[in-house]
Amino acid sequence: MVQLDFSKSKDGLIPAIAQDYETGDVLMLAYINEESWKLTLETGKATYWTRSRQKLWVKGESSGNVQLVKEILVDCDMDTVVFRVEQVGDAACHKGYRSCFFRKVEGDQLVVQGERVFDPKDVYGK
Amino acid sequence: MVQLDFSKSKDGLIPAIAQDYETGDVLMLAYINEESWKLTLETGKATYWTRSRQKLWVKGESSGNVQLVKEILVDCDMDTVVFRVEQVGDAACHKGYRSCFFRKVEGDQLVVQGERVFDPKDVYGK
Repeated sequence: MVQLDFSKSKDGLIPAIAQDYETGDVLMLAYINEESWKLTLETGKATYWTRSRQKLWVKGESSGNVQLVKEILVDCDMDTVVFRVEQVGDAACHKGYRSCFFRKVEGDQLVVQGERVFDPKDVYGK
Repeated sequence: MVQLDFSKSKDGLIPAIAQDYETGDVLMLAYINEESWKLTLETGKATYWTRSRQKLWVKGESSGNVQLVKEILVDCDMDTVVFRVEQVGDAACHKGYRSCFFRKVEGDQLVVQGERVFDPKDVYGK
């Protein structure tokens, strides 16, 4: 198994960028620890560590929108990875957008530019 | 100024992903604090906070390879940004590669797939 450097942050987490394998769009950023790294490699499904819920998180376990990992890139410092993924269900964001980065900065405003793929109420309840 | 949520991590830093504006390649990931966010917006040059040197860091101040920010995306939680940039000098990585993510995982190995744009010795000295 490729060893990453989890020692850079106090919590032993490093960022993982999920990027659409075909379009190159950045879909989301989440964090991984050593166990989620191992599981991602073993299962081929992007598996993170959620800081808010403090547990392993197979992306899409609630919504069905799993991320099938096609390729993994590692940076020069071994402390950040890019998961190049096929995003099942076409939406990575829990707010129903294809990408979590669905807004861009325009002056002092944030302007929505992404299209909503689903209504979160239909998937997660109210 | 668009307000980000710097409270998620103990050190007040959030990740900023630099992405090539034209190709969509992820070039690097670094961290920003509130001051570097403000400076990036004001100057149009990607400005980070270096954790190792503990100071503001205008990317490219040594190498000349600055990042001209063409667009900024903000995620759903307001705690990660994407700087869509024009990478001056065509290399973001201090190791001389176009992207810091110049290696991919193949089984238990890392395989170099990026091309070297410059030799670091020529830029930073030995």
